[in-house]
Amino acid sequence: MDAKTAQTKPARIKPAKLTRPSKLQLDDLVLANKILFRFNIVDAFGHISVRDERDPKNRYLMSRHIPPGMVAARDIVTFDMNSNPLTHIGMPQMSERFIHGEIYKQRPDVISVVHCHARPLIPFGTAKGARLRPLTHMCGFLGCGVPIYEIREAGGMTDMLVRTAPLGKALAEVLADKSVVLMRGHGATMVGTSIQEAVFRAIFATENATIQMQAHALAIGGKVEFLSDEESAKSSKGRNVPRAWTLWKHQITAGR
Amino acid sequence: MDAKTAQTKPARIKPAKLTRPSKLQLDDLVLANKILFRFNIVDAFGHISVRDERDPKNRYLMSRHIPPGMVAARDIVTFDMNSNPLTHIGMPQMSERFIHGEIYKQRPDVISVVHCHARPLIPFGTAKGARLRPLTHMCGFLGCGVPIYEIREAGGMTDMLVRTAPLGKALAEVLADKSVVLMRGHGATMVGTSIQEAVFRAIFATENATIQMQAHALAIGGKVEFLSDEESAKSSKGRNVPRAWTLWKHQITAGR
Amino acid sequence: MDAKTAQTKPARIKPAKLTRPSKLQLDDLVLANKILFRFNIVDAFGHISVRDERDPKNRYLMSRHIPPGMVAARDIVTFDMNSNPLTHIGMPQMSERFIHGEIYKQRPDVISVVHCHARPLIPFGTAKGARLRPLTHMCGFLGCGVPIYEIREAGGMTDMLVRTAPLGKALAEVLADKSVVLMRGHGATMVGTSIQEAVFRAIFATENATIQMQAHALAIGGKVEFLSDEESAKSSKGRNVPRAWTLWKHQITAGR
Amino acid sequence: MDAKTAQTKPARIKPAKLTRPSKLQLDDLVLANKILFRFNIVDAFGHISVRDERDPKNRYLMSRHIPPGMVAARDIVTFDMNSNPLTHIGMPQMSERFIHGEIYKQRPDVISVVHCHARPLIPFGTAKGARLRPLTHMCGFLGCGVPIYEIREAGGMTDMLVRTAPLGKALAEVLADKSVVLMRGHGATMVGTSIQEAVFRAIFATENATIQMQAHALAIGGKVEFLSDEESAKSSKGRNVPRAWTLWKHQITAGR
Repeated sequence: MDAKTAQTKPARIKPAKLTRPSKLQLDDLVLANKILFRFNIVDAFGHISVRDERDPKNRYLMSRHIPPGMVAARDIVTFDMNSNPLTHIGMPQMSERFIHGEIYKQRPDVISVVHCHARPLIPFGTAKGARLRPLTHMCGFLGCGVPIYEIREAGGMTDMLVRTAPLGKALAEVLADKSVVLMRGHGATMVGTSIQEAVFRAIFATENATIQMQAHALAIGGKVEFLSDEESAKSSKGRNVPRAWTLWKHQITAGR
Repeated sequence: MDAKTAQTKPARIKPAKLTRPSKLQLDDLVLANKILFRFNIVDAFGHISVRDERDPKNRYLMSRHIPPGMVAARDIVTFDMNSNPLTHIGMPQMSERFIHGEIYKQRPDVISVVHCHARPLIPFGTAKGARLRPLTHMCGFLGCGVPIYEIREAGGMTDMLVRTAPLGKALAEVLADKSVVLMRGHGATMVGTSIQEAVFRAIFATENATIQMQAHALAIGGKVEFLSDEESAKSSKGRNVPRAWTLWKHQITAGR
Repeated sequence: MDAKTAQTKPARIKPAKLTRPSKLQLDDLVLANKILFRFNIVDAFGHISVRDERDPKNRYLMSRHIPPGMVAARDIVTFDMNSNPLTHIGMPQMSERFIHGEIYKQRPDVISVVHCHARPLIPFGTAKGARLRPLTHMCGFLGCGVPIYEIREAGGMTDMLVRTAPLGKALAEVLADKSVVLMRGHGATMVGTSIQEAVFRAIFATENATIQMQAHALAIGGKVEFLSDEESAKSSKGRNVPRAWTLWKHQITAGR
Repeated sequence: MDAKTAQTKPARIKPAKLTRPSKLQLDDLVLANKILFRFNIVDAFGHISVRDERDPKNRYLMSRHIPPGMVAARDIVTFDMNSNPLTHIGMPQMSERFIHGEIYKQRPDVISVVHCHARPLIPFGTAKGARLRPLTHMCGFLGCGVPIYEIREAGGMTDMLVRTAPLGKALAEVLADKSVVLMRGHGATMVGTSIQEAVFRAIFATENATIQMQAHALAIGGKVEFLSDEESAKSSKGRNVPRAWTLWKHQITAGR
């Protein structure tokens, strides 16, 4: 994997020639916003992006600066990998869009990125010594490790937001080749090889966090049995993602 | 109880003669799927089956590979006791259908089986030393003991799923004559003498788990008073199951 | 207070002359059932009664054996103080109606009784050493003490249900002059001088339980500051009950 | 900041000349009531006020004595800074309106005040040694400290309510220049430079409390890393409040 390719290649920005993203990709991205809101992964804050299938090495799609639960297709902005908007110019954009651009630069395998403040994940980024680890086969993607991003190391005393490309690059470096990175005093960022997988990981990482807090409390100092590395790796494959997506899409469409 | 009868008798599969299951049994099974989803016992995953009343020794009914909340009567598949589909041939089926077939083989008294990932049950299968025990008279069915299935003992390092008849047989053996078996790093399986009882046990085992975690935390190292064996046995009888079912059916029918 | 008056006077049962309860009292009792269900104080189980305003010393009103959330005015049964039904003869009645009749016999000041299995109250009846105590001014009614009913003392090994007059009488004696009695391995019973007050106490006792568990966990062995006896007594008076009832009635009426 | 100016200047009450508050301010205040109810910050109890933009030094607006979730524009009362109603004379008013008047007198910078019994905040006011501190950048406003009001110090044994101007003045003095004050055995009061900011602080202080309890439990005696003073101060600025308000308004308007 050549993680630096996208980063060193200058973005071929041709705004004048920008066609509209495909309806399918727009629909999936809008639906993903609604699912993340429906399951309390995002509230007024948080965002999900996807590589633009028209030019996946150089562009990504994400909503403009509005709450995820209110996103419609017309709100989807095209960004270059330096997180400059190529459409919706002059409108407010997400301060933390650099999370997305910088991860895409360093991770050619990543197609979609979620950034969120899901409540149950916060304690694992702030309680010293706590480690988010996979408790069930739905969360095998956590088995490769869940690093914690301490923004003080990259930026000193900040307002905690990933407002610049260097802060985003530092986050991507802490994420490295993992699926999820926790952000101390802030939230988490998770990646996937599709919109569906990134959403799945956001929802089930959060589920795992809730259950793991209960398991530790129940064990009171005793041992909790997590998935082994091999179990994690094996259980990460299979039909889980499309099956869950089918239900979530059904729930949003049916207004539930 | 001759637990081996069904297992040794070869299934009399006559697909050509398969009549449709009765509307009553189909309706109950579909309703059970919706109730389990409504009360967060299942999400996109999990399933419930029932012995086919047309040939209860040799066949059972369960939905094809779709989320329980989306199941309709047309999705109900007839399986033989080796978990081969006799209808809906060529469509994707539940990977873990062997849970159901193997339990029916070993437990002639069991009419219905639920497999789920209900969140509050997970800690009891993973926190060393924890035991799920009955805290109220609604959960007397837990009083006979709640074993834990460690799939590593039956299958070594797996993807955690009960994908084969031998893994299902091992699970049925750990369940033995109990009502509920927890599955480490996975979920739980519960059985009943009717669809209604299996659903009741799934919902109230989960309620018990939530309350028991709170009781242990409140006691902080102190004693929690569980139902005695005699109290458990006595409180397992009575009008609880049909009364609860009446409400749940009402709630689903009224769309609440 | 002469708690024995009602008990020793024989019930003047004149079924032939029974007029219908007033619409106002029926409406309040039906509404109370729906409120208790809406706020998860009762599920398929639990019940609320009120002294019959036509003959408050000798009769009370309560629904027949159906889930509280499904109760309508036509389901309200008139009972004598020995908990014999005077209407709806031959229909199934609540097994535990003796809770109500026996409390009315011993507590002339009590107008309404709630029996429930509200989840957060269960740990306080089962964790040894735990005491439910008032944490806020909404729960001053807990300040006089919350006794625990151990049915083993009254009935030995039972199915946990208050199925007889002697078991009900024993419960009323443990309740004594308090507002709430917890029932080990079962639930709780609370009383009030009106339907509104009994419902209020059921809901806020449950709220207090949830908050108190959190307070103890947060204090980790340290002290939690409860209301003093004087604060409890003073905060029990005032406009809280009617104001809360106004909202709850509005929510039920508006279908929320 | 001259906190005493408003307090020493006599209120220029001219009821005869009272025009109606602007529709915009009324709409925002009514919406704030509904948002606080929707997010469980208030139930039947609690209230929010705002300085009257027609005469901000001498008057404030707040609903009459009804549950916040039922408030309409016609229920908004105009009060002077001694918390005397200038409209809706003779109707029942909030017992604790002195919280609002006395804070406005001492804090010229405060435009809006919320008083609530939000459940997760209660443990932090009652568990000895517990301190509510900012865990994420959404709650930087907690970084300046969260004092606890012990009403016994100001009023001895009371019914816990801030029923008088002196009790309100004592609360305002404990609040001092902070954003939130916890009230032992009661609830909390938070202030803001706008209705939107006061609501934001009520909702996110409550979120922080829930997460912080989990973080302490997960750390089991270990350290939890809070925002530093500098991080708190920096993260308190920015676009968070209007963005959250946009979503909340959307949710209320859409009936969700």
